[in-house]
Amino acid sequence: MLDETRGARYQRCKPHMEREDLDVLVALSPENVLYFAETYIQTQASIRERLAIAVLPLEGEPAIIACQIEKPSVEAETWIADRRYYVEAQRSPIAMLAEALKEKHLEDKRIGIELNYLMATYYCELVQLLPRAQLIPCSRIFDQVRAVKEQREIRLLSYAGLQTVRAVEAAVRMTRVGDSENDLAVRMIKNMFDGGAQSLEFMCLGSGLRSEMAHCAPDPRVLLEDESVIHLDFGGKFDHYNSDIARDILVGRRSAKHEDIYKRLTDCYVRGIEELKPGARACDIYQFTKEQFERAGLPFTMSLVGHGLGIGVHELPMLIPGETKALEEDMMLCYEIRTIVDGYRYHIEDLIHITSSGHEVLSQPELDTTMLWIQPDLF
Amino acid sequence: MLDETRGARYQRCKPHMEREDLDVLVALSPENVLYFAETYIQTQASIRERLAIAVLPLEGEPAIIACQIEKPSVEAETWIADRRYYVEAQRSPIAMLAEALKEKHLEDKRIGIELNYLMATYYCELVQLLPRAQLIPCSRIFDQVRAVKEQREIRLLSYAGLQTVRAVEAAVRMTRVGDSENDLAVRMIKNMFDGGAQSLEFMCLGSGLRSEMAHCAPDPRVLLEDESVIHLDFGGKFDHYNSDIARDILVGRRSAKHEDIYKRLTDCYVRGIEELKPGARACDIYQFTKEQFERAGLPFTMSLVGHGLGIGVHELPMLIPGETKALEEDMMLCYEIRTIVDGYRYHIEDLIHITSSGHEVLSQPELDTTMLWIQPDLF
Repeated sequence: MLDETRGARYQRCKPHMEREDLDVLVALSPENVLYFAETYIQTQASIRERLAIAVLPLEGEPAIIACQIEKPSVEAETWIADRRYYVEAQRSPIAMLAEALKEKHLEDKRIGIELNYLMATYYCELVQLLPRAQLIPCSRIFDQVRAVKEQREIRLLSYAGLQTVRAVEAAVRMTRVGDSENDLAVRMIKNMFDGGAQSLEFMCLGSGLRSEMAHCAPDPRVLLEDESVIHLDFGGKFDHYNSDIARDILVGRRSAKHEDIYKRLTDCYVRGIEELKPGARACDIYQFTKEQFERAGLPFTMSLVGHGLGIGVHELPMLIPGETKALEEDMMLCYEIRTIVDGYRYHIEDLIHITSSGHEVLSQPELDTTMLWIQPDLF
Repeated sequence: MLDETRGARYQRCKPHMEREDLDVLVALSPENVLYFAETYIQTQASIRERLAIAVLPLEGEPAIIACQIEKPSVEAETWIADRRYYVEAQRSPIAMLAEALKEKHLEDKRIGIELNYLMATYYCELVQLLPRAQLIPCSRIFDQVRAVKEQREIRLLSYAGLQTVRAVEAAVRMTRVGDSENDLAVRMIKNMFDGGAQSLEFMCLGSGLRSEMAHCAPDPRVLLEDESVIHLDFGGKFDHYNSDIARDILVGRRSAKHEDIYKRLTDCYVRGIEELKPGARACDIYQFTKEQFERAGLPFTMSLVGHGLGIGVHELPMLIPGETKALEEDMMLCYEIRTIVDGYRYHIEDLIHITSSGHEVLSQPELDTTMLWIQPDLF
């Protein structure tokens, strides 16, 4: 079990910094500011220019820079003692970052910074203010530190996954042929908020041939008894941690065709999940899954068959070709496979905890791969 | 009334491109890809590296570049004929952008691009691939084109604002002293989804001295009859268009102190709203509001007193010092003012439509500035 004391996550970065010869890490994304500074700055996500910055040096004290409007939250939450605030449109957050780095004598050092988040305008400003600095991408370090979850994170993600599946299943039970896509989606969403979600992250729901769209928005169309299938990919945040679940749902008359394809897909799924254990390489799981699809005679077009889940929706480990890193105990990931046959999308995804000896399917403790079913209205 | 035919928004960029001598505009943010390419690419927001790009040249045909996984949605939605897709982790979206610009003989031209969105990693890749290109920030052009709303946008925003206020008011009526912050927040959220929202964008709700936090997350604490006040700032998206409403709510015993401050604040509010009309300069509205606060004896610490609302939460017009642009007919904006007294935050915000002769308060057709009130439970 990892140390969960405040600031411990920053300490876990230091061996990586030494290995990559970095003198400081600069966190900028909402995910990494939340994880490392332990404060949630809501407007970072909706108003992108309102940067928040955590400065995490190898030696010396860390600092945080945030918009003045967020001061009461930051003061109440972060463990970082050196807190600095800028007034929007009056002082640039990047000028304050440059100043902090100069104070710490880091202006000509090797600076690890989230260059895959930092906007180009801000990047050019920083290069101009610190012409002798070496700006080096460092997201991979943050990703690696975040990949193995703390016990509290495992509890939160487990709760989130289970509540999301329950929200889906209860909404399906409440829905009948003749209701609309929107009716079904709103029931799922309301159930998820009743289950403790703080936000809806995505609600992708499409019936019939609209299931082909990976991220279809539900609309007012009525669910008809025409051998239809609904594709669902759905998740919210619970205390900043994501859920992410995919299912297919039968509508009305049961359909041997849809059920046969879903059965073949879930057979691959069950076999794939068996491979998830410490030491298994991400690329090998991808390859194994691909082989199962070939055996089952299903089209395989996925660029990934799973992804870590946490504060972010796609975290390490990524189950993609070429990723030779192995799974580790206390990684949390979504195993997800999908296929498209005759314009219909079939998709299943659950939350998996990598344990010391194997795995647990947290979002479905009793793994049940029969299709969800919206019944005809008998009244 | 503006032309609402497909592609018309792109045509409205052209006079700006000519004025600023730009040969092409490149849209990258989820907001501008949605607005100009008229396709919503869901994962752009949650998985940032999955870029979608609209290439909008002054002469010749536009193009769109998106992740392969989004192909069915893009094919169904966009009006752009030249559609290109990359497979994630196999082909870089920036390499495809460079290729498209070369095909169009724009590789050494003046390229307007959203540098305040583009991540530094991608920026450096683009500079390397197109060393002779002049990359020029162009977000201001997109912002200006989006600032004056089409009739459909006005209807959507109006609906969104009204449904959000109704969701708040109905939740307050259903809530009693002894319920929790979470109870109240979940009721508002569920009402908003019942009213047609597709997403929750933010739910900032804090009672008592937690109201000081601008973006406080509701928690399980119980609402007590202790002369408390709740601060609320709340919004969702309706068919991609935002709502954004702020209120203060009294809990239990009515409080002359809270009501007096709220009354003084809303007096400033009513006077400020009267200033909103075509021709009024943003900076003058800011200054006028500041003077009202001084007259009312309220602390004034706002860096803005309002912002445009649309696909984005903060759009033009921004009611900030130094913004000399005037309001125009069919702009849609939130007028919002707030003050903090003795650690309590007082805040009010509504949606305003600038009409040919003045304004309408769309989220409250009968402007009522009495405080919302959660009643004691009498049973």
